[in-house]
Amino acid sequence: MDSITVIPGDGIGPEVVECALEVLDALDAGLSIDVLDHVHADRYRREGQALSEADLSRISASSAVLLGAVGRPDVEETGYVRDVLLRLRISFDLYANYRPVRLMHDRLSPLRDPARRMLDCAIVRENTEGLYSGIGGNLRASSPQEVAIDADVNTWHGVSRILDFAFSTARREVCLVDKANAVRAGGRLWQECWRHAAERHPGTATRHLYIDAAAMKLVTEPDRFDVIVASNSYGDILSDLAAALAGGIGVAPSASLNPQTGFGLFEPVHGSAPDIAGKGVANPFACLLTTALLIRHLGHEAEAAAIDAAVAGSIAAGRVTPDLGGSLSTRQVTQAVLASL
Amino acid sequence: MDSITVIPGDGIGPEVVECALEVLDALDAGLSIDVLDHVHADRYRREGQALSEADLSRISASSAVLLGAVGRPDVEETGYVRDVLLRLRISFDLYANYRPVRLMHDRLSPLRDPARRMLDCAIVRENTEGLYSGIGGNLRASSPQEVAIDADVNTWHGVSRILDFAFSTARREVCLVDKANAVRAGGRLWQECWRHAAERHPGTATRHLYIDAAAMKLVTEPDRFDVIVASNSYGDILSDLAAALAGGIGVAPSASLNPQTGFGLFEPVHGSAPDIAGKGVANPFACLLTTALLIRHLGHEAEAAAIDAAVAGSIAAGRVTPDLGGSLSTRQVTQAVLASL
Ligand SMILES: CC(C)[C@H](C(=O)O)[C@@H](O)C(=O)O
Ligand SMILES: CC(C)[C@H](C(=O)O)[C@@H](O)C(=O)O
Repeated sequence: MDSITVIPGDGIGPEVVECALEVLDALDAGLSIDVLDHVHADRYRREGQALSEADLSRISASSAVLLGAVGRPDVEETGYVRDVLLRLRISFDLYANYRPVRLMHDRLSPLRDPARRMLDCAIVRENTEGLYSGIGGNLRASSPQEVAIDADVNTWHGVSRILDFAFSTARREVCLVDKANAVRAGGRLWQECWRHAAERHPGTATRHLYIDAAAMKLVTEPDRFDVIVASNSYGDILSDLAAALAGGIGVAPSASLNPQTGFGLFEPVHGSAPDIAGKGVANPFACLLTTALLIRHLGHEAEAAAIDAAVAGSIAAGRVTPDLGGSLSTRQVTQAVLASL
Repeated sequence: MDSITVIPGDGIGPEVVECALEVLDALDAGLSIDVLDHVHADRYRREGQALSEADLSRISASSAVLLGAVGRPDVEETGYVRDVLLRLRISFDLYANYRPVRLMHDRLSPLRDPARRMLDCAIVRENTEGLYSGIGGNLRASSPQEVAIDADVNTWHGVSRILDFAFSTARREVCLVDKANAVRAGGRLWQECWRHAAERHPGTATRHLYIDAAAMKLVTEPDRFDVIVASNSYGDILSDLAAALAGGIGVAPSASLNPQTGFGLFEPVHGSAPDIAGKGVANPFACLLTTALLIRHLGHEAEAAAIDAAVAGSIAAGRVTPDLGGSLSTRQVTQAVLASL
């Protein structure tokens, strides 16, 4: 029996995770579930670390992690989010961040042109290096002579494997997004690895855009994209932008995978949303779609498809929370989804 | 008499610059014009440098530069674009990149919601440091052990002055965009300088967004923004994204300024567009709006307003090139603008 670790986290995290757990329970998918509800901002404040070595080893005994959200305004300027999210990504070498983005209902699109509006792509984001390396520091901090350096580190190893993953998920095309015309060292590496990867996958069409042009084309020609592959930082930006074009982070799932070990961290793209936390109006769809990704990854295709269909049905019927233009509570949406399973 | 240097450059650069020069001529604004038409990709291929020391000193004798576009596919992977654009920015310490973005006609918006669609903001982009520092390199290049490092360098000096410039251009609010939750060294510097800058400008409202959320909010709530200030890389991305939301790069002007010396480099945001170069259909509006920015900067407010009005009038009347949904050529659009001046 597969076991999954659940980290509800902060803000709306516990609210949307509760919904996901009810749905999993109703599906009876035969998963054992280990809830780590002590991993949150309070513990970070108290102990300087939210995720202990003991937690990491409990997690490593499972097949995947479902995480609600981490983050809280009072710990915003500490290393808290890095301490949880980035540590999980690094500890388990979850180098492939996979964010499918699909317009689930015409009504959700912020775009005007019905012929262009249809977005059905995936952002594949390198998840373990680049600007997120954590390497760097501040010289003469807090003085007018301060110099801050963050190293954007890219390796042949890291770039090649994420490109291969991107090609492995493509249906027709992979579009590389970089800024090789201005950021030269990483640019040359990505470009060379890209040429090799394209040769290894001759059946897939390729395309290349600079990050500024990619941001623009996502708005003007969203329907043209299949798989977009980008560095950690550009992938972060493009996946939120794409999510906005497909109805917002309220319906955006995400997975951080290690394709070799099979281990994965699954989290909705939205954060802890402190402004609406505790009000009972958090949109559980992103967490449900994330749960579907997770169980599909573990081989439960039928159950995953059932969740996707139930969410799509609720959206089509207008049974949605305020962020999607509805008036239902998290609870009511959960009931609607459970009823249609 | 103010003198300006004009660099037509590559691709559609010369075509749109020709239009701008005709308009300037018609306005009789009393500017002397020095055209450097030998600065282009051919020269870079031949001599390894497109901009000589002699060019730089000719430029420095003028008050501002108008640049059409630089870039060509065959030199894409060389340092050509850096050699021209970035060298001009650095040589004249043009640290303030200013990109006003205004929806000039409702018809141009790609967004669905008329109540949200109205965009009238400016992106203020740090233009001399950050990821564009040029510092870095490749270890074991072209081998499976390659490591590429680009340094994202931010200084108290550089960050403070761009923040002050942003506040100086704001009408009601400045929104800082960074990624302090993940990119820590630069993040802490920007955050501290931001607090000080806000104290120096108590009359202006402030707001802070992470870059991923900013990309999303530009799509969902474009009307809420006034001035956005960001690093070199994030400013690059956001300004193209904002341009796409206001009708595309066909109407996006830009200025790189040194507010202390008053010197400036003015260029349309679009590039050299090799796919349409030489076909006579390039949209000259971005270059005209850039020219308006330039002459306004030199104190010719009436003439600048006349250009803005002529462009807005042409757009309202549908006298536009194919990229804006019309069928006119560059020549015909130029005639229309000249006629309405
Ligand atoms: C061509 C490129 C180096 C340049 C930049 O990123 O600065 C361009 O995109 C711009 O925004 O002016
Ligand atoms: C919270 C933050 C560090 C994180 C990231 O940038 O990776 C988030 O935006 C995401 O995309 O998962």
